[in-house]
Formats: sequence, C-alpha cells, structure tokens
Amino acid sequence: MELTLREVAALVGGEVIGDAGRRVRGVCALEATGQETEDHVAFVAAKADPATALKSQVRCLLVAQLPESPGERCWVKVADPHLAFALVAQRFHPLPRAEENAVHPTAVVAGDTSFEGPVVVGPHAVIEAGTRIGGGTVVMAGAFVGEGCRIGRDCIVYPRAVLYTGTVLGDRVRVHAGAVIGADGFGNARQGKRWVRIPQIGNVVLEDDVEIGANTTVDRATLGETRVGRGTKIDNLVMIAHNCRIGEDSALAAQVGMAGSTTVGSRVQMAGQVGLAGHLRIADDVVLGAQAGVMSDIEQPGFYLGAPARPGRETMRIMAELARLPELRREVAELEKRIAELEAEDGGA
Amino acid sequence: MELTLREVAALVGGEVIGDAGRRVRGVCALEATGQETEDHVAFVAAKADPATALKSQVRCLLVAQLPESPGERCWVKVADPHLAFALVAQRFHPLPRAEENAVHPTAVVAGDTSFEGPVVVGPHAVIEAGTRIGGGTVVMAGAFVGEGCRIGRDCIVYPRAVLYTGTVLGDRVRVHAGAVIGADGFGNARQGKRWVRIPQIGNVVLEDDVEIGANTTVDRATLGETRVGRGTKIDNLVMIAHNCRIGEDSALAAQVGMAGSTTVGSRVQMAGQVGLAGHLRIADDVVLGAQAGVMSDIEQPGFYLGAPARPGRETMRIMAELARLPELRREVAELEKRIAELEAEDGGA
Amino acid sequence: MELTLREVAALVGGEVIGDAGRRVRGVCALEATGQETEDHVAFVAAKADPATALKSQVRCLLVAQLPESPGERCWVKVADPHLAFALVAQRFHPLPRAEENAVHPTAVVAGDTSFEGPVVVGPHAVIEAGTRIGGGTVVMAGAFVGEGCRIGRDCIVYPRAVLYTGTVLGDRVRVHAGAVIGADGFGNARQGKRWVRIPQIGNVVLEDDVEIGANTTVDRATLGETRVGRGTKIDNLVMIAHNCRIGEDSALAAQVGMAGSTTVGSRVQMAGQVGLAGHLRIADDVVLGAQAGVMSDIEQPGFYLGAPARPGRETMRIMAELARLPELRREVAELEKRIAELEAEDGGA
Repeated sequence: MELTLREVAALVGGEVIGDAGRRVRGVCALEATGQETEDHVAFVAAKADPATALKSQVRCLLVAQLPESPGERCWVKVADPHLAFALVAQRFHPLPRAEENAVHPTAVVAGDTSFEGPVVVGPHAVIEAGTRIGGGTVVMAGAFVGEGCRIGRDCIVYPRAVLYTGTVLGDRVRVHAGAVIGADGFGNARQGKRWVRIPQIGNVVLEDDVEIGANTTVDRATLGETRVGRGTKIDNLVMIAHNCRIGEDSALAAQVGMAGSTTVGSRVQMAGQVGLAGHLRIADDVVLGAQAGVMSDIEQPGFYLGAPARPGRETMRIMAELARLPELRREVAELEKRIAELEAEDGGA
Repeated sequence: MELTLREVAALVGGEVIGDAGRRVRGVCALEATGQETEDHVAFVAAKADPATALKSQVRCLLVAQLPESPGERCWVKVADPHLAFALVAQRFHPLPRAEENAVHPTAVVAGDTSFEGPVVVGPHAVIEAGTRIGGGTVVMAGAFVGEGCRIGRDCIVYPRAVLYTGTVLGDRVRVHAGAVIGADGFGNARQGKRWVRIPQIGNVVLEDDVEIGANTTVDRATLGETRVGRGTKIDNLVMIAHNCRIGEDSALAAQVGMAGSTTVGSRVQMAGQVGLAGHLRIADDVVLGAQAGVMSDIEQPGFYLGAPARPGRETMRIMAELARLPELRREVAELEKRIAELEAEDGGA
Repeated sequence: MELTLREVAALVGGEVIGDAGRRVRGVCALEATGQETEDHVAFVAAKADPATALKSQVRCLLVAQLPESPGERCWVKVADPHLAFALVAQRFHPLPRAEENAVHPTAVVAGDTSFEGPVVVGPHAVIEAGTRIGGGTVVMAGAFVGEGCRIGRDCIVYPRAVLYTGTVLGDRVRVHAGAVIGADGFGNARQGKRWVRIPQIGNVVLEDDVEIGANTTVDRATLGETRVGRGTKIDNLVMIAHNCRIGEDSALAAQVGMAGSTTVGSRVQMAGQVGLAGHLRIADDVVLGAQAGVMSDIEQPGFYLGAPARPGRETMRIMAELARLPELRREVAELEKRIAELEAEDGGA
C-alpha cells in the first residue's frame, strides 16, 4: 500500500510543502535509518523545536511548523502532528476485521450462537450457548466467550482472553490476550470467623470503543453491572473491581487498581500503579499521578498526587519539605541552643 | 426456583414479619426497580438507619431492625442481614457442580487420570498424567492441570486457569480464569555477574475452601511447599511468592504482593496493593491498609498502615503532620526571627 | 539418578571432606526430615554460622566452612554453597527439552512453520504462519505463537503463554504460563476529547537466557522494539511497556511496572512493586527497594528507595525523621513557649 503526500495531507487535514506526488509506504520513527527514510513518514511533536526535523534522515515529515531552513525534505504541515501520525499509521495498519464467516474447525461454538454478520473464530476458541456476536468481529485463538455474552460489531477478542457468562461488549471493543472480563467480584460476608461467598450475579458492560489491556481483570457486579464507558482505554494488569463505573474517554495506565463500587468520571487519567479505595466518586477530568493512593472522593477536576492523594501542588510542596526534614530538625536543635543561651543569660542577669 | 419467606427465614435463622407464605425468586439490590421489587429479596445493612428500608421499592427485605412505621412490606428480621443475603443468594445461585461424568470430546485427558466421582471437563481443557480429581469438580474450558496434580471434591477450575505439575487443591477450592498456580518461584543464584537458575522443586497446596482470583499467581516452593490455609480468599492479580504460608480465613485484596518465604497468620486482612517483604512473620488478626509496605515482622494483631507499615494510629498521626509540614517550617522560621530579635536586644542591652 | 559426592564436588568446584563415594539422589532443605536426610544434599549459606550445620539432620552438606566439631557428616566445601546448591539441583532437575519432534495432534501448527531441530508442541497449542522455532524448544499446552515469531533453541513456552505477531526469542528463553509478550503498547493520541489509537507496529525481543514470570506482560514497541537483555530475569505480574529497554543480567521482582520508553541498564535489581515513569534512563548496577517510585533518571549505581526514589540512606533518614515528626512538632511548640516567656521577661524588663 502506498499513499501520496497529497493523500496523507487530505487524511490529516494538513498542507503539503514540497512534492505532493511523493509516495510513502508506511510510518517510521524520526530516528529511522535505511530504506524507511526514503519512503516512510515520521513526525515532529508540536512542542518540539522545529529544528529537530533537520537532525532526522527521514525525508517526509509531519510537522506543526517548518524549521527556518527547511532544505530539500517534503513536509506535511498540520496542527497536531502526533494525532496526524496516528491517523496515517492507522491507514497503513488497520485492525483485523472479519470480512466473511470463518470458524476454525477446532473452535467449539455452541449451536445457538448468533452471528450477526461475518465473524472470524480462531483455533480452539470456545463460544458457549446463547451468545450473540456482531459482524466484523474477530475472536482469536483460544479465547473463551461464556454463556449469553453479547459482543458488538468489529470487536477483537485476542488470544486466550476470557469473557465470563453474560458479559456485554459494545462495538469496536478490543480485549487483549489474557484479560479476564466478568470473573466473580471479591464479595464475602463473615460468619463467625469464616468467609461466606456472596454470589456475584451482575455482569460487566464494556461500551463502544473500549480497549482492555493484556491480563487486565474487570470483575462482574455483585448485583447490577460493572461498566466501562465509551472510548475509555485501560492498559495491562489493571484491576477493576465489582460494581465500579468508569465514564467516557478515560485512560487508566498499567497496574491501576480500583476497589469495589467506585465511580470515576469521564476524561479521567490515571498513571501507573494508582490505587483507589472502594465506594468513592471521582469527578470528570481528574488526573492522578503515578502510585497515587486515593482514599476519599475527588470533587474537582485537576491533578492529584501522593498517598493519600492531594492536589498535585500540595503533595509536591510536602515532598519538597520532606527532603528538607533532616535540615529542619537541625534548625530546631540550633534554635533550642540559642534559646537555652538566652535563658541562661536571662537567668544570669 | 422459588422460596417462601418462611423458607428464607429458616435458611438464615430469622423471623418473618408479614406474609410468611409470600414467594421470592431471587435477590436484588435495595435500589432495584421493576418486577424484581415484587418477587426478589434485598437487605438493609445492620449498621444502616432502619428507615433506609422505606426508601426502597423492594417489598421483601432482610433487616436487623424494622423502621418505626414499617408499612405494608414483608420483613425477615435477622441479626446479620448481609450474611443472610449471602446465604439466600447462594440458594438461588449455587455454584456449578459435576453431577455426572462429562468430558468434552476436545479435552485432552491423560489415560491414567483418576476421577473419584463425577467430574466435568470442558472443551480444550488439558489434564496431564497421574492426576487425581475428586467428585463434583468442574474443570472448565481451556484449563490446564499439570502432571500429578491432586484436586479435591467440588472444586472449580475456571477457563484458562493453569495448575503446574504437582499442585494440590483441597475440597471446594475455586481457581478463577487466568490464575497460575505453581509456576517456578523467582529463585536465582549469582555466578559472577550472571544469574543461575535454582530449580523450584516444591509445590503449591491450596487447602479446602480457598478461592483464588483471576490472573493471580501463586508460585511453587523452592523446596517443600507454598501453602494457602483453609477458607482464605485471594482476589485478582495477587502475587504469592515461593514458600509463603498463609493461615486460615484470611483475605487478600487485589494486587497484593508477598515476597518469598513470608508467613501470614489466620484471619489476616490485606487491602489492595499491599506489599510484604520476604521472610517476614505476620501475626493472626492483623489488618493491613491499602498500599501498605510491610518491611518487618508484625507480632501484634491490629490495624497497620503506611510504607513502612506502622500501627494505623501512628501512621495517621504522621500523615496529619505531613500535611502540616509546610506550616511547621513557617513556624520555625518565625521562631528564628523572634529569637534573633531577643538576641539583638540582649546584645544591645 | 544418583551422584557420588566426588561428582558433586567436581560439579561445583568443591572439595569433599568425608566419604567421597557416598551417593546422593537429590537436593533438600536444611530442615528436611526422613529419608531425604540420608540421600539428599542441603546447603548452609556462606554467611550463616557454620554451627548451623550441626542442627540439621541432613548428612551431606554443601558448606563454605566446616563447624568446629564437624562430627560424622559428609561435607562438600565450596566458596559459594548457594550457587553450588543451584548447580547440583539443576543436575537433578534439568529443564524439559525437546529430544525429538513431537507435535500433539490437537495442536494447530501453520504449514509453513520452520522447525530447526526437534521441537515439542503440546496439546491445543497454536502456531501461526511464518514462524521459526529452534531445536530443543518446547511449546507447551495451549500456548499461542503468533505470525512470524522467531524462537531460538532450547526455549520453553509454558502453558497458555501468548506471543503476539513478530515476537523474537533468543536461545534458552523461558516464558511462564499466562505471560503475554507483544500485546499493543498503550499508545493513544488525543482528538478533541477522544482517544485515537496509535498502531503499535514494533515488536518485542527477548534475548538469550531471559526468563519471564507468570502473567507478566511485555508490550510491543510503537515503532522499533521493546528489548530485554541477555540473562535478565523477570518475575510474575510485571509490566514492561512499549519501547522499554532492559540491559543484561538484571532482575525485576513481582509487580514491577515500567512505563513507556524507559531504558534500564545491566545488573539492575528491582524489588517488588517498584514503579518507573516513562522516558527515564537508569544506570547499570542500580538497586531499587520495594515499592520505590522512580520519577527521574538515575545516573549513579547504588541503592535507591522511596517515592520519589532517592539514594537509600537519604530515604531512610527521611523515614526516620517522619516517625519523629509528631515529636518535632511538640519540640517546636515547647520552644515557642520558652521564647514567649523570654519575650515577656524582656517586655517586663
């Protein structure tokens, strides 16, 4: 596949400066060497110094601004080169999509499964009774789709992913390898010193365009549903407990953990290893720094950091003070000495 | 399936107030709407205001105490409504159990496997040589049971769970999807600058009524065994390293990590993302707050928090002081000024 | 299998003191009882009190130094008994290795797969098109090897492990059950309020002698490669994000998380639950304590601790001060009182 720079510019809403008929066959890094530098396109981040482009050997570049002496390269000027890069890369690397029905002979698919369009089912995949799957969807090797699941159009269930009974996926949902959606919530009641299982009767709903990372787990609700909102992206090894709700277009980095019944707003971003206690409410547009430990509701958008999580500036001030704590103790000791001297003089007076 | 409230009361050791012949067909949330409000039963937590019940549309309620004007509902009064709810829910939603032998034709089961009663083996499950499985047990789709494993009665091995060679499960053990039991402990010796593998020869024993969450890993012992005690419940994405021992009726929330050879007592509770160093001993009835980092033995029961973990009250006092640290620094600076003034006066005197 | 102590000594570069013809059939713990004490060999750590040996019932011991009254045991004296133990244990417990081609009839292996020597493929394993696998390698039950993977000699891909398209393994690499190598990096660009997928076009390279723990995830690069260097050992539930690079002979304990594009040197050690931000550079021979949170580059070898990570001694000093913070506040309050008294006297004077 090839695109002219004219086609690239049209795709990303940009403008060609140079040979608009030049053809590219893929995307590459700014640091690329060899053949790619001739026929692939790279990008310079909008915030980077435009002169960065001149250090690259790549001939075709997506940029927000041309360097002062642009030289002989070809440029596609666009407001957000990072986004433009994503769009061009998607054109060259579309996701797999079922174009016609293809069920591998080793797959075990319940007789009453309803395929609502072309579906691909890979080797050793298992689809249990009463499931409905939308057209375009690919269920890869060894994936498990439990009883009564509903999967939308153009979804991808990667190898060995597991959807427990009753899981619902919207359209264009991707569930990466090893992810487990809909396992029992961690619900137990005490009977004397022992734990008694609370059956987990609810399910999990992943709305349109949700992505779930490898080996992430999203537990089913005790009653009702655990729900991840449209367009929310979740990285690897994340834990979403029973009855959590996450809004739209949020992003959770790897190893984040949310305890049960916590509700998170839209466009919330969590860096790696963040932990949230249960039964909290987190507002829209909150950003949580890495390893933050959220112990109470967050009602205002903004950046939060630390454990317990506080507004970022506050935590950073505390951290700065922390580093100076040994110094503070020395200062206090010094003051004590000066006071003692004053007291001695006073007493002596 | 239906139960009269009389049967519900008998099941939970409660007392019906209202129509004891009324029938319910399931459990639901206090916030339920629609048909469930008529024929399902919900609960009001013992600690909640009894008047909470009156806000619910559900007609049949498990409560510890009736509200002042109970109105026309049906009540089952019981000491612990949460526990009662669990017991009723279990009746309506029993766990899957093998009633007769049913090995899916795509399962690969070694010829010498010993089924000690009816066992269900799902599609594409693999059971290797020399394994013994108790009656009532269900091995679900794609699960892997390695050589010489011993699985008790009424266990459930969920889809894609993996039991390495020699793993031992008691009765009624549940291992959720993607969990890996008995992988090699992380044991390496140094040879100059390189790591040399220390073979992991021991195994893992999960005693009766243990539950292991999705994608959790419990490593085999280097020598001897890694052991999880009767009735202990472990959530998702937890790491139990080689040679750890956990007592009975403990509960570990998601993403907890225990390093090698640490011993934890009975009825210990760990919140999410807690970490324990290796070779520690944690007493019975210890409770660890979320994200705690345990660096040394804990000999007394009670609540511990923070990294390094300290008695909860101590950590909370330190955290409170932390928040006031910038203020403390200002106070010290202020004192310094006042001392300097005193000194100036003194000098001037 | 049996070894004489003479053979053991030759294997580990040690010296027999006692009956060199005595035969052992395995390794055991120093605390072993029963038959093992007669015909297995244990070790006493070099740093332990040599008298420790005398408390053990095991008759054949690897030691760095004999106790004062060694009694009737058999000894193999060696500089590093821990390493010696590893080497002897390896002899008794070699890793599985393919000696001849053995593809289970339920495995689904693409017709163009190239086996470059004897390869074992377990039940329900899936190997997609264009893959090359070196001799001696074992692909266990239910493992998934994506299109165009290249696997070296004497590797082990454990049950249910997943290698996405294009993954490259050197020789003697081991990937434990449930690990996912090469899933998409977590790369998204913003388009207004929504996330746009950035295709992840790169791959993962695991060099010779790398070990990957159960349920660990190593994401493919956005462009280029994510690379783990020769001899590096990675424990369970670890997250290595896209475009990370790890040097040789490093060791990462369980639940460590590395964000994207971070580069780690050789012989780096990370304890459990450590987190590293993205785009960092960590020097060779750095050691990170448990739960450390690394926010910036580390240029000097040595021990680092805390979040944000600082040189260990610094963090430990701060932690000590933290514990004394309530006391410091009381001291400051006391000083304030003494100053107020001085001021009063001054004023009164």
